[in-house]
Amino acid sequence: MKDFIKPDLARVGRCGIPEVVYGAGKSTEELIDISRTFLEDQGRIIVTRLDEPKVEDIKSAFESMDDVVLERNERARTLVLRNRDFESRSYGTVGLITAGTSDIPVAEEARVILEELGCETMVEYDVGIAGIHRVFDALESLSGVDLFIVVAGMEGALPSVVAGLVDKPVIAVPSSVGYGTGEKGFTALNTMLNSCTPLAVVNVDNGFGAAAIALRILRLCDHLKDD
Amino acid sequence: MKDFIKPDLARVGRCGIPEVVYGAGKSTEELIDISRTFLEDQGRIIVTRLDEPKVEDIKSAFESMDDVVLERNERARTLVLRNRDFESRSYGTVGLITAGTSDIPVAEEARVILEELGCETMVEYDVGIAGIHRVFDALESLSGVDLFIVVAGMEGALPSVVAGLVDKPVIAVPSSVGYGTGEKGFTALNTMLNSCTPLAVVNVDNGFGAAAIALRILRLCDHLKDD
Amino acid sequence: MKDFIKPDLARVGRCGIPEVVYGAGKSTEELIDISRTFLEDQGRIIVTRLDEPKVEDIKSAFESMDDVVLERNERARTLVLRNRDFESRSYGTVGLITAGTSDIPVAEEARVILEELGCETMVEYDVGIAGIHRVFDALESLSGVDLFIVVAGMEGALPSVVAGLVDKPVIAVPSSVGYGTGEKGFTALNTMLNSCTPLAVVNVDNGFGAAAIALRILRLCDHLKDD
Amino acid sequence: MKDFIKPDLARVGRCGIPEVVYGAGKSTEELIDISRTFLEDQGRIIVTRLDEPKVEDIKSAFESMDDVVLERNERARTLVLRNRDFESRSYGTVGLITAGTSDIPVAEEARVILEELGCETMVEYDVGIAGIHRVFDALESLSGVDLFIVVAGMEGALPSVVAGLVDKPVIAVPSSVGYGTGEKGFTALNTMLNSCTPLAVVNVDNGFGAAAIALRILRLCDHLKDD
Amino acid sequence: MKDFIKPDLARVGRCGIPEVVYGAGKSTEELIDISRTFLEDQGRIIVTRLDEPKVEDIKSAFESMDDVVLERNERARTLVLRNRDFESRSYGTVGLITAGTSDIPVAEEARVILEELGCETMVEYDVGIAGIHRVFDALESLSGVDLFIVVAGMEGALPSVVAGLVDKPVIAVPSSVGYGTGEKGFTALNTMLNSCTPLAVVNVDNGFGAAAIALRILRLCDHLKDD
Amino acid sequence: MKDFIKPDLARVGRCGIPEVVYGAGKSTEELIDISRTFLEDQGRIIVTRLDEPKVEDIKSAFESMDDVVLERNERARTLVLRNRDFESRSYGTVGLITAGTSDIPVAEEARVILEELGCETMVEYDVGIAGIHRVFDALESLSGVDLFIVVAGMEGALPSVVAGLVDKPVIAVPSSVGYGTGEKGFTALNTMLNSCTPLAVVNVDNGFGAAAIALRILRLCDHLKDD
Amino acid sequence: MKDFIKPDLARVGRCGIPEVVYGAGKSTEELIDISRTFLEDQGRIIVTRLDEPKVEDIKSAFESMDDVVLERNERARTLVLRNRDFESRSYGTVGLITAGTSDIPVAEEARVILEELGCETMVEYDVGIAGIHRVFDALESLSGVDLFIVVAGMEGALPSVVAGLVDKPVIAVPSSVGYGTGEKGFTALNTMLNSCTPLAVVNVDNGFGAAAIALRILRLCDHLKDD
Amino acid sequence: MKDFIKPDLARVGRCGIPEVVYGAGKSTEELIDISRTFLEDQGRIIVTRLDEPKVEDIKSAFESMDDVVLERNERARTLVLRNRDFESRSYGTVGLITAGTSDIPVAEEARVILEELGCETMVEYDVGIAGIHRVFDALESLSGVDLFIVVAGMEGALPSVVAGLVDKPVIAVPSSVGYGTGEKGFTALNTMLNSCTPLAVVNVDNGFGAAAIALRILRLCDHLKDD
Repeated sequence: MKDFIKPDLARVGRCGIPEVVYGAGKSTEELIDISRTFLEDQGRIIVTRLDEPKVEDIKSAFESMDDVVLERNERARTLVLRNRDFESRSYGTVGLITAGTSDIPVAEEARVILEELGCETMVEYDVGIAGIHRVFDALESLSGVDLFIVVAGMEGALPSVVAGLVDKPVIAVPSSVGYGTGEKGFTALNTMLNSCTPLAVVNVDNGFGAAAIALRILRLCDHLKDD
Repeated sequence: MKDFIKPDLARVGRCGIPEVVYGAGKSTEELIDISRTFLEDQGRIIVTRLDEPKVEDIKSAFESMDDVVLERNERARTLVLRNRDFESRSYGTVGLITAGTSDIPVAEEARVILEELGCETMVEYDVGIAGIHRVFDALESLSGVDLFIVVAGMEGALPSVVAGLVDKPVIAVPSSVGYGTGEKGFTALNTMLNSCTPLAVVNVDNGFGAAAIALRILRLCDHLKDD
Repeated sequence: MKDFIKPDLARVGRCGIPEVVYGAGKSTEELIDISRTFLEDQGRIIVTRLDEPKVEDIKSAFESMDDVVLERNERARTLVLRNRDFESRSYGTVGLITAGTSDIPVAEEARVILEELGCETMVEYDVGIAGIHRVFDALESLSGVDLFIVVAGMEGALPSVVAGLVDKPVIAVPSSVGYGTGEKGFTALNTMLNSCTPLAVVNVDNGFGAAAIALRILRLCDHLKDD
Repeated sequence: MKDFIKPDLARVGRCGIPEVVYGAGKSTEELIDISRTFLEDQGRIIVTRLDEPKVEDIKSAFESMDDVVLERNERARTLVLRNRDFESRSYGTVGLITAGTSDIPVAEEARVILEELGCETMVEYDVGIAGIHRVFDALESLSGVDLFIVVAGMEGALPSVVAGLVDKPVIAVPSSVGYGTGEKGFTALNTMLNSCTPLAVVNVDNGFGAAAIALRILRLCDHLKDD
Repeated sequence: MKDFIKPDLARVGRCGIPEVVYGAGKSTEELIDISRTFLEDQGRIIVTRLDEPKVEDIKSAFESMDDVVLERNERARTLVLRNRDFESRSYGTVGLITAGTSDIPVAEEARVILEELGCETMVEYDVGIAGIHRVFDALESLSGVDLFIVVAGMEGALPSVVAGLVDKPVIAVPSSVGYGTGEKGFTALNTMLNSCTPLAVVNVDNGFGAAAIALRILRLCDHLKDD
Repeated sequence: MKDFIKPDLARVGRCGIPEVVYGAGKSTEELIDISRTFLEDQGRIIVTRLDEPKVEDIKSAFESMDDVVLERNERARTLVLRNRDFESRSYGTVGLITAGTSDIPVAEEARVILEELGCETMVEYDVGIAGIHRVFDALESLSGVDLFIVVAGMEGALPSVVAGLVDKPVIAVPSSVGYGTGEKGFTALNTMLNSCTPLAVVNVDNGFGAAAIALRILRLCDHLKDD
Repeated sequence: MKDFIKPDLARVGRCGIPEVVYGAGKSTEELIDISRTFLEDQGRIIVTRLDEPKVEDIKSAFESMDDVVLERNERARTLVLRNRDFESRSYGTVGLITAGTSDIPVAEEARVILEELGCETMVEYDVGIAGIHRVFDALESLSGVDLFIVVAGMEGALPSVVAGLVDKPVIAVPSSVGYGTGEKGFTALNTMLNSCTPLAVVNVDNGFGAAAIALRILRLCDHLKDD
Repeated sequence: MKDFIKPDLARVGRCGIPEVVYGAGKSTEELIDISRTFLEDQGRIIVTRLDEPKVEDIKSAFESMDDVVLERNERARTLVLRNRDFESRSYGTVGLITAGTSDIPVAEEARVILEELGCETMVEYDVGIAGIHRVFDALESLSGVDLFIVVAGMEGALPSVVAGLVDKPVIAVPSSVGYGTGEKGFTALNTMLNSCTPLAVVNVDNGFGAAAIALRILRLCDHLKDD
């Protein structure tokens, strides 16, 4: 099966962001193969949507390699393998906000990727619009960030409210938290797409996508700064 | 065709609210017949979703009757015919809020019915959440009302924000204002159904429904007051 | 994780109804933390959508505290923790009706919250419209209530029938009971939204939402009585 | 184009019901050709969903034929052409009920076909469940019919209520009358499919289909009677 | 809980068909209570959608009662309890056809109910339209039946083909057999609703509904025979 | 605007089929510009979904050019402009079948493109499955074709039936003919995707797509023949 | 009606982007009032989704004011009114790409807003993926831009392809161009949301939204440059 | 139950392709019965969608038969039983491409059936459009194939890109790989149906269907070659 896999090692050069491996649909065997290829070629691999049994097996496969650091974030369901001497730089600071506690895993997926790819992060979690004063407090705490990633399930109105109060880019992530007509996050998604204050929207639960867009933006600013 | 129509003249006794006639699916002929029956039996008829050509024909049919008052609200698309000596009483005050100017026709439908059936109204229109300070201002203006009817299209988040700031009942009406995934008001409807702060939701553009629920609530309070 | 949680302790002052904690998306650890904060600040916490394993762990965490009463309603999936000296008052009486026996858990969720927040309740369960005489009997039994919460799955027509027979406010709750096109309660929801006799509709299975709306209504009447 | 059309003249022998021609998607030219073929072969043709300009053209084409009777029902949008000596027999009586006045065109389409194909009909139109006493009255009037066709739009609950009160077959026809989530009749359709009391359901606005099923049932009974 | 349940014992008198108990949403305890009530009052109870663990418990509860017969059909997921001296009569014969082997459970649910309520049945299972000659063979075998119940999943075209070849009533039951866009049976349902040859359609997997409609038809014919 | 348009003149070399111009979304001006470019470079242009007013204007623009032939097919809504000396060859014969007369425009769009790009065609229109004998007759007439394109709206079952009776490739085209749940052709599309006998399916009303696929198949066979 | 309108004049200070007025749902009267307010307070107003009759009326209302410049872009359906001395600055350059010619109006809406609010633009229209070489050519032409807005209807795959080839932010706009399952742009929207290379997605046809997000990004870079 | 099953043994003669048995909805018992019938009559049986426990039981049932070969492909979920002397011939070569590694099972299902029914296959798996160079490389490797089957989940754009670069028939298979709005493969399906370069589309995950269509095409070419 090994030769079926064709990791896109050139992506980091082409798009500025390395391929991040979506773990959910792949076997442990495939994941170990891909990880080896990435570690050798790029010095690091980031895997998302990875659950326990596979994590243990991958850890076992790499634990004898002293120069490889493994970092597991259970809530974010991510695994990072990195050569001990891998270096990254910082492009800016992203503020992560969630409407509820159940949205935190999606925000954490974004946070792991942002920090790994060269961003600092600040978080304000559990900031629903049911008590709008909490939004004001959170935005004050995050006044120094360069852009916002806002995660919300249920009615998904938080990113809309945030974008009406700040002048920085706002990336909106619907989460699949909800029930009844809110199930699967499609109501939150639609709310974000119809926001009166325009939002950069990604797919439901797509913390990775939000992080990748944020990074493209901060890399652009970094690039323009040098001009 | 006349004998096909069976107006529910007993509804006012049974439910406290007379039958309000939905004009859209009825011929002018049918509407004139129903109007006659209601005027005779109840002294008044309220017709909703009524457009121009029919209005003129109905007006012509009744203009020779001196004791009948006709009131047309173009924006609300309503027509009221009332015996000059028809009397009504007041059950309380309803605050009507809309997110945009395009939502006003729905609010006006509610307003006409509320005022006709015995409520006072106060309005604050064009209060979107893109500028949240406008919401605070509007709620201050409406601080004396007994309950709220909030109409919103697009992302439909306004009723949710309002309900988080007041302790009165909030009836949420999605409007069909919007485009793309917001077309036909289903996104606004779902946002309202998934609001973290619970809302009493009615069908898209159903200004009449919101008014009828408001009236049942105010009549209950009125009834309990007398106990 | 503890500092991520931001309970909205001010909600009871702002909206008249305390924050009710949605248990489904939260870890036991988070729930114990939130419960402590609420008990200290408000003397009570109500948790909904809570299943067995978590209930036992929360009970263990609080069983040594003699002044805290725990009340579990298995059918409603609720848990209430209350200081022994917590006092509440009564705002009125709510009639709870279900179409089938499978709709009872949703009605019970509403009942627990209503009773906890200051309402008396009367119930008539398993009153489907297949035998319409059962509806008449139930309404006679409930003739003394101030408003109705009606829960129905499948075709969801019961609230519509009830609202055509009474003059009190009717809050309609679609339940997710059904199969085929009735699966997940969306058919029942749409039936209620399209009822000829207007209904105050909430999200599928949202017993809590129905109770919160009922309470806002009864608190309004109570407030107007004092005027 | 004429030779493209292949009328199924054998259907009346095979299925007991002749092909009824759906007029909406056909040109006037095609309709005249088909009509000629049917008149010659079977002595009659029934066209449904036929609007004004086409009706006039078809009438012109046949007005010189003295032995052909033309019957137009504007509300039903049907046109029947029949040889003067065409004979039919009666298989039984169908009761037609509608929830509102706007549902009448669908019921009339069924009525025209039933009467043409050999059934007597009795009608009770505008019998919504908002006033349930009207249902009881209507059923009493129709106590002598053999089966029921019930048409309803909006929430579509009427057939369900009827079927719970009678022991005859009930054919339910959703109509496209409604707005918001009720638009296009899908809510009414789903309500009927999920009825606790089972209903024989047909497509939205399909008055013809309901008539055809009714006829198959009455022909079966007629056939069994002769055994 | 017992007193919450309100079995509709009068239904058999009112609609000619006794209440059939939907087992899926009810606890074993409730089912035993309902069964007792029905056995006492009507001499029989039919339970559908009933899975193993509950069956065993119900059997245990009644096994000591010598005069009660228990009949379990695993494929149909039904359980019938009947007093040994319960008598029924025959109203006619129903032909049951399925498109595939996976549709058989739905047909069997219909068959159990039909036989219990007084119909004879003949079956032809696994008669897909991929090999249309199998349809002709099946219809020849079933040439003596009074009406047809045809179950199909996937593209759901079999009932349409059958109805074009016979002159008896055809009741179409979509099954939830399928995958991709065919998942859950909605494609089959829509195919049946749009059939050029009209069909009496019921909800997905609703074998019970099909049987109940068939019975109403055969009872009507039986009744008319006696006239 | 002219320079905005980038006709893909290389497509015929790359894919074997020239770009066919979708007329619906383009202005007359753009269409004339594109036509000139194609005529010059390739000697021919095919435009689909083109309605009357635009046709006249394009005709006017080219009528003075004696060496250009214009062919309009009103039913297919196509327009072909061709240099008088344009030559094409034949790759094989396609059989076109429609379920009803209303599906003919879609089949004609396919036919025009097939004949223009080098196929012979045979047609059998109005061959619904309500009378299955018509299907057998049509297939006998078309026994000499190389592959089938079958167009159907409503329940869309005809391609499935055809594919079960022949061993040639069958391309299925859902048409938007239908009403209620059949509206817009999605039911027909789903029926075709779920056919037990596999079908090559294209988008609703996509006669062009069906023709293009047929041509790729016949060109492949032609190519393999030469090997 | 005038006092119902509450233009959010503070938005430019709060969000860096002035309120852009959505013309579709507003009367000419309202638009003239809003325009006056904006011109006075901010020196400029941008109106989108504005069709001919209204444009003429607005022009008439302002044509006597010599110091006001009116700019109408018919394809973009925009109208800009600006004081002659209004000054703006440039934040960067945006590359606008469309898949087809029918997507141009959406891109033009974005272009008008971008240029008005301080961006330079470069366009490459009609760059579908059917001929992928056209994509490479377009990207080479646009190699100097800071970020991309890519508009596509039908299958909507172009933004995905672009984002895989560049390292700048890509904002994806689904257009409502398409038919069958592609109608209304929801297929294009979903394609963009599911792109393997993450995209910042906005609502269907939302050229304004894309422009507003682009501006927030370029303003951020501009701001960071100054640090 | 045995006699319920009616294998379509004549299909291979009628359609050129034998019935392939869909294993998911059938019991082990039924599968063994069907296998026996096929082995006897046709010398081979192919079962799809078959999971472990059933495979073992079927293997046991046939392991004592020395002249029967069993081939299990776990990834494809297929089982083939074949008489040792079964012979097949080759009709051509199919190129199989997948967008990701998670799409491989669907491609493998197609591959097993193709090879069993007389095609050679070449595969290029994991060729997403995020790195478009991988598509060019894959197509170069597959330059000798006769037609393509392309499987893709998520945004599903790969078949569209492939079809724009080759002149052979392209069969597109959406896979159910994805999440959020991409869940269940409907987005990929719609992308393929709306491809600007026409594709022959099959149901989600329908590897079997793609293989059957490919075979019909190659058999046609083979047949025409002999002419």
